[in-house]
Amino acid sequence: MPGTTETAGQDTYDVIVLGAGPTGENVADRAHALGLSAVIVESELVGGECSYWACMPSKALLRPVTARADARRVPGLHQAASAPLDTKAVLAHRDAFTSHWKDDGQVQWLDSAGIDFVRGKARLDGPRRVVVATGADERVLTARHAVAVCTGSRALLPDLPGLTAARPWTSREATSAQSVPPRLVVVGGGVVGVEMATAWRALGSAVTLLVRGGGLLPKMEPFAGELVAEALTEAGAAVRTGVSVTAVRREMPNGPATVVLDGGEQIVADEVLFATGRAPRTDDVGLETVGLEPGTWLEVDDTCRVRGVADGWLYGVGDVNHRALLTHQGKYQARIAGAAIAARAQGTTDLDTGRWGAHAATADTAAVPQVVFTDPEVASVGLTAAEAEHAGHRTRVVDHDLGNVAGAGLYADGYRGRARMIVDQDREVLLGVTFVGPAVGELLHSATVAVAGEVPLDRLWHAVPAYPTISEVWLRLLETYRG
Amino acid sequence: MPGTTETAGQDTYDVIVLGAGPTGENVADRAHALGLSAVIVESELVGGECSYWACMPSKALLRPVTARADARRVPGLHQAASAPLDTKAVLAHRDAFTSHWKDDGQVQWLDSAGIDFVRGKARLDGPRRVVVATGADERVLTARHAVAVCTGSRALLPDLPGLTAARPWTSREATSAQSVPPRLVVVGGGVVGVEMATAWRALGSAVTLLVRGGGLLPKMEPFAGELVAEALTEAGAAVRTGVSVTAVRREMPNGPATVVLDGGEQIVADEVLFATGRAPRTDDVGLETVGLEPGTWLEVDDTCRVRGVADGWLYGVGDVNHRALLTHQGKYQARIAGAAIAARAQGTTDLDTGRWGAHAATADTAAVPQVVFTDPEVASVGLTAAEAEHAGHRTRVVDHDLGNVAGAGLYADGYRGRARMIVDQDREVLLGVTFVGPAVGELLHSATVAVAGEVPLDRLWHAVPAYPTISEVWLRLLETYRG
Repeated sequence: MPGTTETAGQDTYDVIVLGAGPTGENVADRAHALGLSAVIVESELVGGECSYWACMPSKALLRPVTARADARRVPGLHQAASAPLDTKAVLAHRDAFTSHWKDDGQVQWLDSAGIDFVRGKARLDGPRRVVVATGADERVLTARHAVAVCTGSRALLPDLPGLTAARPWTSREATSAQSVPPRLVVVGGGVVGVEMATAWRALGSAVTLLVRGGGLLPKMEPFAGELVAEALTEAGAAVRTGVSVTAVRREMPNGPATVVLDGGEQIVADEVLFATGRAPRTDDVGLETVGLEPGTWLEVDDTCRVRGVADGWLYGVGDVNHRALLTHQGKYQARIAGAAIAARAQGTTDLDTGRWGAHAATADTAAVPQVVFTDPEVASVGLTAAEAEHAGHRTRVVDHDLGNVAGAGLYADGYRGRARMIVDQDREVLLGVTFVGPAVGELLHSATVAVAGEVPLDRLWHAVPAYPTISEVWLRLLETYRG
Repeated sequence: MPGTTETAGQDTYDVIVLGAGPTGENVADRAHALGLSAVIVESELVGGECSYWACMPSKALLRPVTARADARRVPGLHQAASAPLDTKAVLAHRDAFTSHWKDDGQVQWLDSAGIDFVRGKARLDGPRRVVVATGADERVLTARHAVAVCTGSRALLPDLPGLTAARPWTSREATSAQSVPPRLVVVGGGVVGVEMATAWRALGSAVTLLVRGGGLLPKMEPFAGELVAEALTEAGAAVRTGVSVTAVRREMPNGPATVVLDGGEQIVADEVLFATGRAPRTDDVGLETVGLEPGTWLEVDDTCRVRGVADGWLYGVGDVNHRALLTHQGKYQARIAGAAIAARAQGTTDLDTGRWGAHAATADTAAVPQVVFTDPEVASVGLTAAEAEHAGHRTRVVDHDLGNVAGAGLYADGYRGRARMIVDQDREVLLGVTFVGPAVGELLHSATVAVAGEVPLDRLWHAVPAYPTISEVWLRLLETYRG
């Protein structure tokens, strides 16, 4: 850009971060804490998808649903908790948790953390160079050491006749809607689909969940989707598997939408949520100027450095690298990438990139935790039975009915749930654990520590679960394994 | 005993277990599963204190309290959850969880597990010999290999003028009462005291909690007692520290009781619960016939074998050995003692009694977990800061305010809580962890796995907490430690 030179002090930084979601914030923060100057560029809200259109609003909508479900299962409260949710209060609470979609607080945090901030649309412009469109102007930033692309992902809409004109909901609209649609069709049975079906059903929508495959939550253990489908059905949602949407129509702008299924059946709804996958937000960040293909996921090594870029100055951290599309995993990668960037900037050549090293995002492949905040909750970490088998491990699958655990029965009358652990029989450590049931979300971290810590089974016998908690399922799993 | 000889087949067993609480059941079950014959003797209900007068009924009373407290802190539910608890439903639920104080189910379980059962009062009668008073008769049992005393503990009442005549509640009456006392005085600020104060206050009692020392839960981190005291006070209980009871009077059998304090003040109440400690149930089990002192705690090694008994045939498992007076810890000891008994019976001389070995109850000293089911919950494992320092470790104490964790804020409006981890700076592992706050009970097992697994801090960084759960406090603790 004429008039801006690479030598202009304020426009040269050690690290330039594209995207101010939790991942970008953490890359910049770590690099800065380790002595580097950092600037972060964001065209939308500082705080990213998670703060405004994903984790925060979705969980703010879901927490009253699970709290009510929990209370309903407790004698002495059953009746009181059977009243409908106060929708207005729930939506207002959600609005508060998204700071009413304003990012002042997060901008202030960047400032307090010593990270420069530029609001605008950033594009790579060759090695180490970033051009930012800030309204009418442009600004050129130059990186001494690294550029980290942390632009995340967006909802992927299928190419269906009439879809654009029908103004479908994506995760953004589903988490930020200001009123309850009387009829809601949800397309897709992954995490977004089942969470939003749960939330809006509890808030009063007549919900139809349409899933192409045979079940919900297809990436998890099969019983997870089965238990969630059962609960959604009991809550009054229609769960339909094995169906495809062939078209969506909305003839009047304020009228209802019609969803056409492959068999010709038509479903009329006020809103249609498509939760059918994610695409990387890399289509307009100038990847072509550094020899990469726009719109692709960035292929990275365990330090999150993009492969195949000369001199290794480009990093792809968070959703964009497609390793694990979860806020906490993006932040994890960010801590590791930030440390790797700083170490390399300081001339370190022997980074700690071995398995579980300080500069290796090993958990991305071995111990990714995830909680689905439905009723029942689903919580999993590491490999599923199918994944472990596919990876060639000699495994044993150990199941236990959570309803038979004393602490679960005390937690909720008629508690239904299931636990599974996958044992690596050669090393006698756990490869993965899944819990499904009320309140298992906080139980997950015990499994995450066991899997990431590679704690041997004979030591896990000494990790005594407190009685009578739901965690006692750990003892039952070990006993079942011992036989 | 005339008429019964040691050679009578049905009265000679490999293992004789005194006491059919969870500990005794597990000793017998493990020994039997490992090939030994076992008989268990119980004079009261099979299932023990835990099933009828401790864990089960107390948690059945407390779960509605915490569920209501949780629901009250959620927008959209607040109003509905503010109604009083349905006391009748809560008490009926508690009755169901104690099987109405009938042990048929547990007796059946013993039978199905292949364990013989004798109902009666058992006393040791010299080495390997047990005399059981069964109604009018006596029966003599002989052990080939081991006798395990698993008779547990009872409430310890102080020697106060008028106390016996005043018919005070102990933990038994407090967990099994069939109506709500309008006024309840609770003496003692340990786990029983704070749990029962919480339960009965929520069910409508005017509760006064009297504590001799300066705070509640004196064996735990100080902030635990502080947060529980704050919550009890907000719930309308009177919490008074630094006071001693000098006398209790109940003049009319059906009239109120008067509690006299050291300053002369008198408090009138309908019931007075003494939760002032436990005594071993070893006063009437014939310890004197094998050279031990009746009424003392049994001193045992890490396999739970009683020290100082010739030929090592006597075991003391669970509360009686005073290592850790908790059901889950008794069961843990029972698994280890059962395995040690079986190994020794089979002539094994090299038991695995090293630290964390299969025949060593190492967790008793390094990783005892405990959950206090108050509102807020208290959950701790391992050493407190004071204990770690006293033990001579070079420690760092790391605290974090749970209210600042996103998942906690989503869980409950105005979430209040605190987390602390004690780092062994020489080994960079955790010595202890304490969480206080709503829903931390299931979070505890993550800490138990970390402490018992001795997972190094640099590996704990790879144990990523799922966002946005309360478990994210783990990341905050690690960040705080890193500084």
